[in-house]
Amino acid sequence: MPRYALTIEYDGGRFYGWQRQKDGVISVQKTIEDAYLKFGKRPITLFGSGRTDTGVHATGQVAHLDDPRDIDPFRMMSGLNFYLLDTGVYIVNVQRVPDDFHARFTAQSRTYIYKILNRRPAPVLDQNRVWHVMMSLDVEAMKKAAFFLIGTHDFTSFRSIRCQANSPIRTLDALDIWKEGDMILARVQARSFLHNQVRIMIGTLVDIGKKRWNSEYILEIFEKKDRLAAGQTAPPYGLYLTHIGF
Amino acid sequence: MPRYALTIEYDGGRFYGWQRQKDGVISVQKTIEDAYLKFGKRPITLFGSGRTDTGVHATGQVAHLDDPRDIDPFRMMSGLNFYLLDTGVYIVNVQRVPDDFHARFTAQSRTYIYKILNRRPAPVLDQNRVWHVMMSLDVEAMKKAAFFLIGTHDFTSFRSIRCQANSPIRTLDALDIWKEGDMILARVQARSFLHNQVRIMIGTLVDIGKKRWNSEYILEIFEKKDRLAAGQTAPPYGLYLTHIGF
Repeated sequence: MPRYALTIEYDGGRFYGWQRQKDGVISVQKTIEDAYLKFGKRPITLFGSGRTDTGVHATGQVAHLDDPRDIDPFRMMSGLNFYLLDTGVYIVNVQRVPDDFHARFTAQSRTYIYKILNRRPAPVLDQNRVWHVMMSLDVEAMKKAAFFLIGTHDFTSFRSIRCQANSPIRTLDALDIWKEGDMILARVQARSFLHNQVRIMIGTLVDIGKKRWNSEYILEIFEKKDRLAAGQTAPPYGLYLTHIGF
Repeated sequence: MPRYALTIEYDGGRFYGWQRQKDGVISVQKTIEDAYLKFGKRPITLFGSGRTDTGVHATGQVAHLDDPRDIDPFRMMSGLNFYLLDTGVYIVNVQRVPDDFHARFTAQSRTYIYKILNRRPAPVLDQNRVWHVMMSLDVEAMKKAAFFLIGTHDFTSFRSIRCQANSPIRTLDALDIWKEGDMILARVQARSFLHNQVRIMIGTLVDIGKKRWNSEYILEIFEKKDRLAAGQTAPPYGLYLTHIGF
């Protein structure tokens, strides 16, 4: 049966996360599935690469669906976007993929960008697009701390207490931090993440940037294996799922 | 009398341009002057570096004001921003400047960035922040055309018929064009610009990117000295005043 991979952009602030939920609240998955029913006259199930939380944005979420018909990818994209008008989500690419492609299980890497506006005045143009941190952050200390997070670790302290993953062991492949004017950006990449892992890592780095802890404190947080040892969970609206590697 | 220079960020979509108008519509200048009256209990006149049109954004507009009192710049910024809450404009820097500083007359350069989203689907996260051009643009042709625009020319064809400048001669110091993913960005710099000059140049470059004309056609447009010879005026919401050099 023909399989199609969709690349998806959405404004996380307009959805209760990626995943369809029983109580019928507006999720990205449900919104696209509903649009597909109108476009393709056929109910489909969408499998996403990452289940982003309420408020988290995406520019490069990937999901796949099966439709027995041979549909031109460009027509599918245009047709879906017609029904997605003004919902806060658009399909930015559609392509045919082999039967063994699976958006969730064959994804090799997930990349997120986190945006922090670090200045006194609140954002004007980037409202609901960045985390506004007023206190001046020590970016060098954050970079040094990021270095301790990279690699294979037990990330128990960096996952939500509601995280249901069997193992807390993950391998963080990259965590780059850089400045662009008043903005501090972080790029995070791994094969997979625990629940809230990116946001807890960023929240902890911001605490280190505020000199609450020194950079080496990351090692102590790892050792304690306790969510309360790490910093706050950074807000969702600064986070963007930007790329899935296959 | 102490003079203060303000750096200003605003969402152009929320104002009828920079300049205070007789009929009392909401302009950036009037909004800040009103906030100053509340903060400083004194009417002041704000002199801006560039009179941006309705819809044009700014991240680095500069304006100056005189207040006989010695006010801490940081206190002025915080005080003004308190009264500017939710108006769509914030002051991002305040500094004391010498008496001979003039935001308009001593400015040596004005820099704008123009953002084009070049893909089929409309923007989700960048709504009202970019010009959405669906037809694929030839960026190399645009770069080549930009090269013909740089330098000192009679820009009659590239100014609004309502432009009131005495001379149509201007010197364009830079016009860089580059791609970032689906986005095409242009950075434009000159000592000063004619009315709508940046937007008409960008609109013309987009016509060239669409292969309506070849790059060398810029020379013909210059020769014709006729607004109708150039392309469309690019929409204001893709344009950002980013920097004033003194």
